[in-house]
Amino acid sequence: MAELHGLAHRLQKFAEVRDWERFHTPKNLTMALAGEVGELLAELQWLTPAESSTAMEDPRFATRLRSEVGDVMIYLTRLADVLGIDLVEAAHAKLDESEERYSVAEYHGSARKAPPLA
Amino acid sequence: MAELHGLAHRLQKFAEVRDWERFHTPKNLTMALAGEVGELLAELQWLTPAESSTAMEDPRFATRLRSEVGDVMIYLTRLADVLGIDLVEAAHAKLDESEERYSVAEYHGSARKAPPLA
Amino acid sequence: MAELHGLAHRLQKFAEVRDWERFHTPKNLTMALAGEVGELLAELQWLTPAESSTAMEDPRFATRLRSEVGDVMIYLTRLADVLGIDLVEAAHAKLDESEERYSVAEYHGSARKAPPLA
Amino acid sequence: MAELHGLAHRLQKFAEVRDWERFHTPKNLTMALAGEVGELLAELQWLTPAESSTAMEDPRFATRLRSEVGDVMIYLTRLADVLGIDLVEAAHAKLDESEERYSVAEYHGSARKAPPLA
Repeated sequence: MAELHGLAHRLQKFAEVRDWERFHTPKNLTMALAGEVGELLAELQWLTPAESSTAMEDPRFATRLRSEVGDVMIYLTRLADVLGIDLVEAAHAKLDESEERYSVAEYHGSARKAPPLA
Repeated sequence: MAELHGLAHRLQKFAEVRDWERFHTPKNLTMALAGEVGELLAELQWLTPAESSTAMEDPRFATRLRSEVGDVMIYLTRLADVLGIDLVEAAHAKLDESEERYSVAEYHGSARKAPPLA
Repeated sequence: MAELHGLAHRLQKFAEVRDWERFHTPKNLTMALAGEVGELLAELQWLTPAESSTAMEDPRFATRLRSEVGDVMIYLTRLADVLGIDLVEAAHAKLDESEERYSVAEYHGSARKAPPLA
Repeated sequence: MAELHGLAHRLQKFAEVRDWERFHTPKNLTMALAGEVGELLAELQWLTPAESSTAMEDPRFATRLRSEVGDVMIYLTRLADVLGIDLVEAAHAKLDESEERYSVAEYHGSARKAPPLA
């Protein structure tokens, strides 16, 4: 995971040179992560699902979404690094479980059943 | 970004074989992402920041945190894929801005000033 | 605000007799509030906006939504009480501002402009 | 619940005269609610729990917190109104359950057990 590792390392340095590591507890970083996800929600809250699917076609909207998604990724990467969790590995482990729980035969195209990824 | 790409691809397939792609609009996925972050908040809400820093030392807690972080990563990866956003690139672009805005000279060790990453 | 006051008072007692007041800092309660809102998001994430508008017609769904909304209200009331904020007064004060900012003449029926309440 | 009813009514009118009722589906309002809670999280994310307990002593901070709490209350009130849920009644119903589940004898002062209100 060379590129994810590089991002985590850059975030470590960013915090270290500013002496901000003491603020970066899992509790605080999770709040910051949730705050950034809140900004993403605010961008999409009044759109229909269909409108949200074409949002990236508007260059100014695309810029804002890219910026908010970037913020979320920053805090998630920093949080995982501080916790010592490998993001991609943790996601695959959960997907292993979901593939068992939501068998294709039983859940195909089901609108009534909740369609979670996780 | 081979490994992130592999995760995104697995999520595409997961949705495709269940015919769940129509549920995976940016609006819906952002809600799901926020719901998973909510579960992570719930795990840490009553801990002190210091307790949250040692949470991974408890094996059962570590398992739960790994699981919740994995869920968050799943939905963030799927959302970015649907939007056509490169997660790591978007994060670095925001960090470029933050490094300019929060100069080391001005923000070093400052507790009074908000210490954001983004 | 007799009934809101009664709820806040019941929550005080609930915490006091269990010696849980020390957990009920504004920081912790805001995390708990966000966690409960996350559960509400999870209930609605895969519905279309139109489906969400008729969700209360399904008795089992109505029970779940009433339960989640109740949880959110519990933590918001407890948080406001701990902060010494009057919820209804704070909401009216923000609405005063919104009525000035979003004039009816300018914002009527506007789909392009974001339609916030606050 | 005269005062809560008055607030809900004011919000109805606010939406109606701007022709914004069609945006106010439960799905959209829950996203807006979560977005506002995200702003509250952002205010408190770098504070210690103890610092958060004295935040209202700083007049400028108090103004911001009152404003964010007001926004959360606005969307929660509007959401409950659209769903036809009585906020105070829903909260009391959940508290009835919590008082049974978390007996004082068993949960008094317990730091190890999660101390939920709901």
